[in-house]
Amino acid sequence: MSLYTQLFYSKEVDAMFSDSEVIAKMLHVEVALAKAQANKGLFSQAIAETIEASCVTSKIDIEKLKIDIALGGNAAIPLVKQLTQIVKNKDSDAAKFIHLGATSQDIVDTAMVLQIQEFIIWLDNKINLLEEQLIVLTLKHRQTIIIGRTLLQQAKPTTFGFKTAGWLTAITRSKQRLQEIQKRVLVVQLGGAVGNGNENISTQIQEEFACLLGLAPSFSWHSHRDNFAEMASVLGILSGSLGKIAKDISLLMQTEVGEVFEGAADGKGGSSTMPHKRNPVTCVAILANTNRLPHLVAAILSAMSQEHERSAGLWHSEWEVLTEIMQLTAGSVEKSIALIEGLEVNENRMLANLELTKGLIYAENLALALAQKIGKSAAHEWIENACKKAIQEKKHLKEVVLEMNIEVADVDSLFDPKNAIGLSLELIDQVVKKYQ
Amino acid sequence: MSLYTQLFYSKEVDAMFSDSEVIAKMLHVEVALAKAQANKGLFSQAIAETIEASCVTSKIDIEKLKIDIALGGNAAIPLVKQLTQIVKNKDSDAAKFIHLGATSQDIVDTAMVLQIQEFIIWLDNKINLLEEQLIVLTLKHRQTIIIGRTLLQQAKPTTFGFKTAGWLTAITRSKQRLQEIQKRVLVVQLGGAVGNGNENISTQIQEEFACLLGLAPSFSWHSHRDNFAEMASVLGILSGSLGKIAKDISLLMQTEVGEVFEGAADGKGGSSTMPHKRNPVTCVAILANTNRLPHLVAAILSAMSQEHERSAGLWHSEWEVLTEIMQLTAGSVEKSIALIEGLEVNENRMLANLELTKGLIYAENLALALAQKIGKSAAHEWIENACKKAIQEKKHLKEVVLEMNIEVADVDSLFDPKNAIGLSLELIDQVVKKYQ
Amino acid sequence: MSLYTQLFYSKEVDAMFSDSEVIAKMLHVEVALAKAQANKGLFSQAIAETIEASCVTSKIDIEKLKIDIALGGNAAIPLVKQLTQIVKNKDSDAAKFIHLGATSQDIVDTAMVLQIQEFIIWLDNKINLLEEQLIVLTLKHRQTIIIGRTLLQQAKPTTFGFKTAGWLTAITRSKQRLQEIQKRVLVVQLGGAVGNGNENISTQIQEEFACLLGLAPSFSWHSHRDNFAEMASVLGILSGSLGKIAKDISLLMQTEVGEVFEGAADGKGGSSTMPHKRNPVTCVAILANTNRLPHLVAAILSAMSQEHERSAGLWHSEWEVLTEIMQLTAGSVEKSIALIEGLEVNENRMLANLELTKGLIYAENLALALAQKIGKSAAHEWIENACKKAIQEKKHLKEVVLEMNIEVADVDSLFDPKNAIGLSLELIDQVVKKYQ
Amino acid sequence: MSLYTQLFYSKEVDAMFSDSEVIAKMLHVEVALAKAQANKGLFSQAIAETIEASCVTSKIDIEKLKIDIALGGNAAIPLVKQLTQIVKNKDSDAAKFIHLGATSQDIVDTAMVLQIQEFIIWLDNKINLLEEQLIVLTLKHRQTIIIGRTLLQQAKPTTFGFKTAGWLTAITRSKQRLQEIQKRVLVVQLGGAVGNGNENISTQIQEEFACLLGLAPSFSWHSHRDNFAEMASVLGILSGSLGKIAKDISLLMQTEVGEVFEGAADGKGGSSTMPHKRNPVTCVAILANTNRLPHLVAAILSAMSQEHERSAGLWHSEWEVLTEIMQLTAGSVEKSIALIEGLEVNENRMLANLELTKGLIYAENLALALAQKIGKSAAHEWIENACKKAIQEKKHLKEVVLEMNIEVADVDSLFDPKNAIGLSLELIDQVVKKYQ
Repeated sequence: MSLYTQLFYSKEVDAMFSDSEVIAKMLHVEVALAKAQANKGLFSQAIAETIEASCVTSKIDIEKLKIDIALGGNAAIPLVKQLTQIVKNKDSDAAKFIHLGATSQDIVDTAMVLQIQEFIIWLDNKINLLEEQLIVLTLKHRQTIIIGRTLLQQAKPTTFGFKTAGWLTAITRSKQRLQEIQKRVLVVQLGGAVGNGNENISTQIQEEFACLLGLAPSFSWHSHRDNFAEMASVLGILSGSLGKIAKDISLLMQTEVGEVFEGAADGKGGSSTMPHKRNPVTCVAILANTNRLPHLVAAILSAMSQEHERSAGLWHSEWEVLTEIMQLTAGSVEKSIALIEGLEVNENRMLANLELTKGLIYAENLALALAQKIGKSAAHEWIENACKKAIQEKKHLKEVVLEMNIEVADVDSLFDPKNAIGLSLELIDQVVKKYQ
Repeated sequence: MSLYTQLFYSKEVDAMFSDSEVIAKMLHVEVALAKAQANKGLFSQAIAETIEASCVTSKIDIEKLKIDIALGGNAAIPLVKQLTQIVKNKDSDAAKFIHLGATSQDIVDTAMVLQIQEFIIWLDNKINLLEEQLIVLTLKHRQTIIIGRTLLQQAKPTTFGFKTAGWLTAITRSKQRLQEIQKRVLVVQLGGAVGNGNENISTQIQEEFACLLGLAPSFSWHSHRDNFAEMASVLGILSGSLGKIAKDISLLMQTEVGEVFEGAADGKGGSSTMPHKRNPVTCVAILANTNRLPHLVAAILSAMSQEHERSAGLWHSEWEVLTEIMQLTAGSVEKSIALIEGLEVNENRMLANLELTKGLIYAENLALALAQKIGKSAAHEWIENACKKAIQEKKHLKEVVLEMNIEVADVDSLFDPKNAIGLSLELIDQVVKKYQ
Repeated sequence: MSLYTQLFYSKEVDAMFSDSEVIAKMLHVEVALAKAQANKGLFSQAIAETIEASCVTSKIDIEKLKIDIALGGNAAIPLVKQLTQIVKNKDSDAAKFIHLGATSQDIVDTAMVLQIQEFIIWLDNKINLLEEQLIVLTLKHRQTIIIGRTLLQQAKPTTFGFKTAGWLTAITRSKQRLQEIQKRVLVVQLGGAVGNGNENISTQIQEEFACLLGLAPSFSWHSHRDNFAEMASVLGILSGSLGKIAKDISLLMQTEVGEVFEGAADGKGGSSTMPHKRNPVTCVAILANTNRLPHLVAAILSAMSQEHERSAGLWHSEWEVLTEIMQLTAGSVEKSIALIEGLEVNENRMLANLELTKGLIYAENLALALAQKIGKSAAHEWIENACKKAIQEKKHLKEVVLEMNIEVADVDSLFDPKNAIGLSLELIDQVVKKYQ
Repeated sequence: MSLYTQLFYSKEVDAMFSDSEVIAKMLHVEVALAKAQANKGLFSQAIAETIEASCVTSKIDIEKLKIDIALGGNAAIPLVKQLTQIVKNKDSDAAKFIHLGATSQDIVDTAMVLQIQEFIIWLDNKINLLEEQLIVLTLKHRQTIIIGRTLLQQAKPTTFGFKTAGWLTAITRSKQRLQEIQKRVLVVQLGGAVGNGNENISTQIQEEFACLLGLAPSFSWHSHRDNFAEMASVLGILSGSLGKIAKDISLLMQTEVGEVFEGAADGKGGSSTMPHKRNPVTCVAILANTNRLPHLVAAILSAMSQEHERSAGLWHSEWEVLTEIMQLTAGSVEKSIALIEGLEVNENRMLANLELTKGLIYAENLALALAQKIGKSAAHEWIENACKKAIQEKKHLKEVVLEMNIEVADVDSLFDPKNAIGLSLELIDQVVKKYQ
């Protein structure tokens, strides 16, 4: 369904995976194969050039291709057939050398790797951008006090910059993963019928082929799909971390919390029946994708036990799913960038919300101070009583503490949020330093 | 990606879920709402007719709609906006009455239910067809002896008709499920902003609205998605049963087994490098879908814990996934019909394969006969020895048995496959009888 | 891991699935088989009685059984072996008749069905209890006004009883599903080696066997697992609906919302570092289970394409997963009962929260009233301006409306929450009526 | 359910995750915290020693702990309570310093990391062992000719060593992944209530704490679970690669193929009704686990969008699932080692199966040879005809080729399997060289 392309997806990445781009990549692989074979002396450069000149996407009859895919079972078989005809029309001799020694899966898999390569470059740029924005946000709100919440309950204060620094660290680890896996993922597939090569795809030719494509050579992996599974997993993990950010923001945008807001835009986030609402539309799109991605990753993992030298179905189940994983991740990343860039922070509301528990959030502060005097569990007990009293009498905890006359120096300071943010500033600085 | 539309999907069902069909269904819902409200006296029939006359898919600017969906977060908000403008151009008074009292989700959900309704009718027909074919196949091969296989090992004989009768029973249970769930799934959504109705969508109007759409009225289920989850599950189960058929056939098509084959077609199942192969292309497509569907069902189940009166993301994650579940199931069903219709059965190969173990598959027959004389475990032990002997000496078990001189009457009969098919014929007849 | 048995599980249901109970059920199946065969004249009643007398769980060496399961690949093979030895010690003749004509899967599957049967009875009782509690809660809070929330934003008022009535309808649909599937799920498995029966397990014997076990006869379903998949799905759906309740309550318990609370208990919901917190511990347990269940259901669906007459691995993957699905669902149901039973509702906080938007939540009310005068979209626009004004000037919307001097009769009434709950009361009454 | 512990799991790894081991690890974390704080001068070494002396698993009342976990919502809260009482009985002063500044999640997460650390060491050893066995197998069968199969059809020859070399490469990539992720996974969690630290858990103390535990320090990741998700994914991928091996072997063990067999063992792989069978019991166990793991990985990925500073449910859903992932992976690895170690290879059957297509598998050889003369597609066509003829006339392809009198030198050589294995030997040598 394409109605939701602008809601869940990225235009740029969708374009990378259009039918014509998939075909272009497969043709590119056939060209690289012919050139590698010509460079290694299997046939003349002229033949390779003739093949290259024929490998033009616009010459392919895509509708016919789709029909023939249903007969052949993959896209390479009918594509090679059409291509052979195109070359034959120019030079019947050259037509003999198309796809020489290769198998359909060599083409389909290597073309997918080229798409992954292109996607990774795109993604890496976007992650860099997201990191930059998160660093800016973190520095801007380094000292902006916000309540920390655990199990959806107010716990104790932190800073909003500390919160966003946490988001940042997770995104950066995903970037690191994306870099590490490239040595395994960005490899060619060129093994011939059952993967063990032949005279037309010798190791030298494979190396040349890989070199021409900017990929690494590899032992054939026709039915060993761990690399694609790794790619899928790493995107699933990134998506989870983006989902965490969207989850936090959507919760902070609740009417009853109101601490941050998605950037406003004309016509954005309105409700058809409630004109006053400011819906977290961007978060919603990210969270929708976040719900879908783990299952798509699992589909790729479930496809790993592929039979013998080529699977009857499991390989085929990867094609659309792997593409969908990249497309949905791209959508989430783009949306996240827009989300962070436009984020509006309501510092006053954050401060106001800190007072909702009438001082109870400072209980741990108090407990830690007390613990050093009367021990952890005694302190815990004392505080529990003070809190109960505060609740029952609807008083501020500070008031109760002063009444209960406990020996803690500087009660005011214990109830000052600035003194309740732990090591937030130091820890933020440690994180941010790494990006400089 | 649409390259694989002919491989994994059904053209007919893809057409049901095209962008314009989705829009058509939403417009149909708006018309039904206006008519119901007019019928119940909220405004004149003339107004409803004006609205109806404007609810024409071709008048909707789909590209603009897609862009606005990204702002509004769902398809109904911008659709109603466009629709209102269209009506306003005709009759500014009528424009006031569009979408009266409804919320976006009322439209989106009810339109999806209408699509499900259309899909179920299509699917029910296809399942009937598949059942008929399976009955024909079962009757034709009622007595065709084939080895039964457990844990991928030859076990003991059965008939191919018994095997296909098993396929049939599973498909029929899926049909039954599909019928049972309709009372829960084919219901309208009409609750207004937070589901609790209002004067413009009274229970009388809801009933009229449901009646006009051929659906049942329902307490609003904006954030109660069990019905869609049930629909998804039932299709996931059907898909699993279709996958079981394709799995069996793909295994029976193995070169070393060669007992059945997909129907041949020009250019079908060929390999680009191995001209002699007869690939199970149809099974492959079904098995690919079968690998994907359980995960899509899980995505719908994972989307069930929707927040309050409308979810922030989980609802949105259903749209494409539920559609994909129906589309992939449709593809599998169509492919299965073609598969069963064209299936070629090699009875001679089945008989030949029965002899591969040199009589070992009759061991249980023998064991049962012996058990009545010397007890189950003694018989088991005796047979184990006889089998070992047969294997070591590379003799037929019958020969060994005759040599070992055990007291079993009519050894020939124990090694006759016709006598080794248990109650296959009786059980097949019981099954088939139910369809007459 | 058993550390969390009390957190995520139900003691009663865990007991149903203990090792000894699994064994007891398998022995029960063997007894029923022997009795059925004796009743149908295959051997004497005395033999069946001897077998029955030996089928005592405590006589089984469970540790040895576990070791032998790893060799045989399922629990029935070594169990029958031990059982045969036990009977032989009493009566070597009777030992010949144990497990006559059956296959391991007949025993394992039928025993699982017996466990499912027991579980369904338990579950049905618990669902009845949960329904009763939800009815009580709904009636009690029929008129308790609460804000309805969509996309985590305050939308417009409803009643808490309306909210809980929605929970109730979903649970009841799950109960209905559970009833409908029993005719398919509560059936025996008795097909012998490859499912096609034999003289020792004729259709008459299968019927007698089914009758003795309180189950229905069935065509063998050794590799047709749709029924178990249906059972799994139905529990996954129920779990999703329970998760929805827990999600709502956990959100309502947020410090900033504070509208409902889990019942307090000594030591419950405390935090080790924040003595004042009231953690939604029960919701947390339910939500944890809710996150896990969809994936377990998918594992069962993924196991459906079972090879030939018995699968090599997929069948085996069902055993623990299906059990886990029942155990986790049981935990969630029990926790939900406790949750609803102990729920504390803070009506004052609900009312106070209604005022957080300074009247903006009544915008739709106003819009609907206005729409009838000036048309839907003009009304929408007018309200949008009024709301903006209210927000900018930090005024109550009612104040702004009065200032803007729009022609709407009885502004006070439009801002009265009691008049803003739509048809909540009528719709609740319709729902509750069905249970009387 | 523990009936299947020996079938699906590893005893050694199950022991690592026993209740008492989980508790021991949590106590170990508390000791490390106390020591780190003493080392950094927060209190005396004597106090840390008193705490250490009390941190003895046998002193913990596990049954009470389980009950209290249901109240507190995690294992650390009641453990600290019990521990405090134990210390208090010795030295009430020391009791004040237990768990100082920490939060429950610090303990639970760090303890899990310690378990992961222990598991990774175990797993790395096992993978090394598996690699060694696969190298031995590969070298032994470097030249053992076997048919390569694609889409379950015979394709063209390869060697069994080439097949196992492929298995080996995938396992080695998983080992590499396991090494790379350790820098992210083997980190402490020590952030206090909302993760931002406090005076009692300064960065210096965190470093000391990490050092004592053999882990790395880290920015708190209470609600950033990408590292655990990565651990889960990497095991899911390894499991998929193990499943691929088991899938291949189970298919090769089919009666109709009979090329390899699991090692025999007394009582292993027998069937209760078919004494002659040799069931792939070890493969079955691995394949069962392989079906389950992708879904468990997805459950971890689905748990990533954790709310604010600690999640209400998603964190909790990780505990058992992550453990189960490690336990099932361990079972699969151990079974795989046994499988490879005991594998019996039937070289004669492999050779015999090569002849099943009567030379058709050499068609590509022929096609490649012909292609250089008459062009790829003409060759393809010529071969197609020859193959059809061979099939129709039930002749060997070689015979047909000789009859058709095509200009290819040395027909015998083209039909010699030794000449049809492509670059198998060279490629195997390249792979194996890397391990020397």
